[in-house]
Amino acid sequence: MTRSLRPVPADALRAALRPHAAGVVVVTAAGERGPAGLTATSFTPVSLTPPLVSFYIGQSASAWHTVRDADYFAVHVLGARQRALATRFATSGIDRFAAPTTWRPGPGGVPLLDGVVTQLVCAQLSTRPIGDHHLVLGTVVAVAHGPDDAGLVHRDGALVPVASSITQAS
Amino acid sequence: MTRSLRPVPADALRAALRPHAAGVVVVTAAGERGPAGLTATSFTPVSLTPPLVSFYIGQSASAWHTVRDADYFAVHVLGARQRALATRFATSGIDRFAAPTTWRPGPGGVPLLDGVVTQLVCAQLSTRPIGDHHLVLGTVVAVAHGPDDAGLVHRDGALVPVASSITQAS
Repeated sequence: MTRSLRPVPADALRAALRPHAAGVVVVTAAGERGPAGLTATSFTPVSLTPPLVSFYIGQSASAWHTVRDADYFAVHVLGARQRALATRFATSGIDRFAAPTTWRPGPGGVPLLDGVVTQLVCAQLSTRPIGDHHLVLGTVVAVAHGPDDAGLVHRDGALVPVASSITQAS
Repeated sequence: MTRSLRPVPADALRAALRPHAAGVVVVTAAGERGPAGLTATSFTPVSLTPPLVSFYIGQSASAWHTVRDADYFAVHVLGARQRALATRFATSGIDRFAAPTTWRPGPGGVPLLDGVVTQLVCAQLSTRPIGDHHLVLGTVVAVAHGPDDAGLVHRDGALVPVASSITQAS
């Protein structure tokens, strides 16, 4: 254990976090510049009553200004069959909403992606800067279920499928 | 898609979130009442520079007051071999730090659990109520690596191992 109580360097933290597994979602929003979206591994359910969720977005992310200004955002929980979609929405310099992405506008124009495991439509409550990211908080106002699939997580720099349930948690 | 723009009921949100996979950690802190800890699926890396992480804790959680009042907390990233530890720190009415849990005090007395994949010692920065939970934010001040292991996620009500990397993410 390093005994220094100074903040650890970025490289040390990055290495320490590699074994942490995180679920993969695509977040979308609509604005004057058109649809915007990103792959995120920071999506977190916060509260059931009221129904709140959050995610972090980098202040340099291409979708940040659209997310910040939009009344709604959508969270798409991805399954193992959506690995290509996760990669597309993490790729810079492309139109992430062009084919083969298929989508349609939902409440307030928020882009809803087809074929994902779960769609959550959220009314944006707040954004708040934390470090070099922003915490975005929303109230879930609509949910829809797509086809069942194995899960998809990001771990150790890779997108990894998660098998179906094996052991019931207590 | 439900077109209601009212907040969705808790049951609907719970069902919608079942396919979301979340990494599993145990968070610990020390206080006048002794060591406290809980299993959390809301741990999120926030920022590398500065090195910030966050998690949510329910306002009725047994560890909440100890976490709130402590200068430090520790985050333990669990692997597939720590399923019993995850269950123990999610069980009410037991001494979660009694055998077979093995631990030692770290900086400021924060309990460090043995045998986990990664330990992060964090200086608590802030706590903030959001819905029926609190967002706890910390600066990572020390990291230590334990034995390698497959990952562990919570999905569909179960603790599920995550195989090693299969496909490198772009």
